Amino acid sequence: MKLIADNLRITKDSIRQALAKKDPIPIQALVTRCVQQGAHGIDINTGPLGKDSESAMVFFIKAVEQVTDLPLLIDTTNPAAMAAGLAVARNKTIINGISLEPAKLEQILPLAKKYKTDLIGFLLYPDSRVPKDSSERFEIALELLARVELAGVAKEHLIIDPVVPPLSWDDGLFRARELLKTISMLPELLGFPVRTIAGLSNLTTGVIDKSRKTLVETTYLSMLAAAGLNYLMLDILNPHTRLAARAATLLTREDIFSWESLA
Amino acid sequence: MKLIADNLRITKDSIRQALAKKDPIPIQALVTRCVQQGAHGIDINTGPLGKDSESAMVFFIKAVEQVTDLPLLIDTTNPAAMAAGLAVARNKTIINGISLEPAKLEQILPLAKKYKTDLIGFLLYPDSRVPKDSSERFEIALELLARVELAGVAKEHLIIDPVVPPLSWDDGLFRARELLKTISMLPELLGFPVRTIAGLSNLTTGVIDKSRKTLVETTYLSMLAAAGLNYLMLDILNPHTRLAARAATLLTREDIFSWESLA
Repeated sequence: MKLIADNLRITKDSIRQALAKKDPIPIQALVTRCVQQGAHGIDINTGPLGKDSESAMVFFIKAVEQVTDLPLLIDTTNPAAMAAGLAVARNKTIINGISLEPAKLEQILPLAKKYKTDLIGFLLYPDSRVPKDSSERFEIALELLARVELAGVAKEHLIIDPVVPPLSWDDGLFRARELLKTISMLPELLGFPVRTIAGLSNLTTGVIDKSRKTLVETTYLSMLAAAGLNYLMLDILNPHTRLAARAATLLTREDIFSWESLA
Repeated sequence: MKLIADNLRITKDSIRQALAKKDPIPIQALVTRCVQQGAHGIDINTGPLGKDSESAMVFFIKAVEQVTDLPLLIDTTNPAAMAAGLAVARNKTIINGISLEPAKLEQILPLAKKYKTDLIGFLLYPDSRVPKDSSERFEIALELLARVELAGVAKEHLIIDPVVPPLSWDDGLFRARELLKTISMLPELLGFPVRTIAGLSNLTTGVIDKSRKTLVETTYLSMLAAAGLNYLMLDILNPHTRLAARAATLLTREDIFSWESLA
């Protein structure tokens, strides 16, 4: 399981201010810490961005690339910003992401072909509703795969994000369990070893108590790893979550156990 | 997932001395702490016991029953001690356990019928070798089930222990993963909702570094829970392992999520 840092988010004051001042230093300091903690990729979550979205994205990409060669997940719903980021990036990029939402299929999906990148497909209905169970998720996955191939993108570029539910929903527990089933069955169902990604932060949305939040996150990420998840998006600067993710990766690896991998 | 305290072991000096002096206090103090930490059952691991094995077992059972009504797992390879414990116990008892080893099939298995108790069956070859993969485990499970029914014990009394491997074995990781598969597939394979139990302590046999040990244990127990394990034997006095086991139980429960269950 590869670890993707979800720490670079425009919702953080320091990052928003860095963008406003076009000051790369706070962004680079944050990304450098993520790299030091063993991230395998950096999610650049800029949100939709407003006017000057293209130059804002270019600023982010250039700032990050000055401190790391890691793959970058470009995380925006803004097609112009996405295109600008893909055009300027030198690191490997991943489009994060598309769904069956028509605007995304029309404006973002074609960018995966143009820039020959991987792209993340969310298992959501076209109106962004979350599917209820694994059979609904499988139908959406099949439809997404069909759309991706129709757009001339090789299926191997698709990485599926089944969308982790908040446990606080009435049926949050049920959904969280169904998600594990979805992850473990997707490769067989789609007929090729499709990769999967999941973001951990959604699970405990709204929870204040930090230790309970971490406890539930570390438990669930172990289950995600056992289900065969390929990429985990997480707060890699939380030492508990990070260590648990490394231990889970260690236990699901196809080689000889070594305690050193936990160092 | 129910939690069985594995803390009461004759290998501990304090417990061995308590038995020598027939002093129930150290045993009761330990068991009381396990009960306070939410154990759902107590494993009484007396080892084979020497001479006076029957009176020793009776002493253990009576000492424990004075402080708890929880189910007791009688954990000995000595048939006479097992019989003495089952005969004297007032709490619910579980025989821990049998395997395909001829002596156990002949001398311990019949006690499950006589005392109408649940019994744990280890997935080991008759010579106590550990099976290598899940297909070998399934064959052994089918054979065990046949032996149990042949002995006049209803199959619903059987609880299967697939035997957690030490990760330090050359193929420890592979075996640990195969075990998860075994647990999740056993009910379907045996054709009824057979219960499963696993002991966590074996996983990190020989490991000195306490924090690494705990990290790997908490990760693996989450995977066991996700695979559908019914009973986890653990050091319930380790707060990290205990909390992780509660969180894993919470995430695999069939009801509404509640943070209070982690309190």
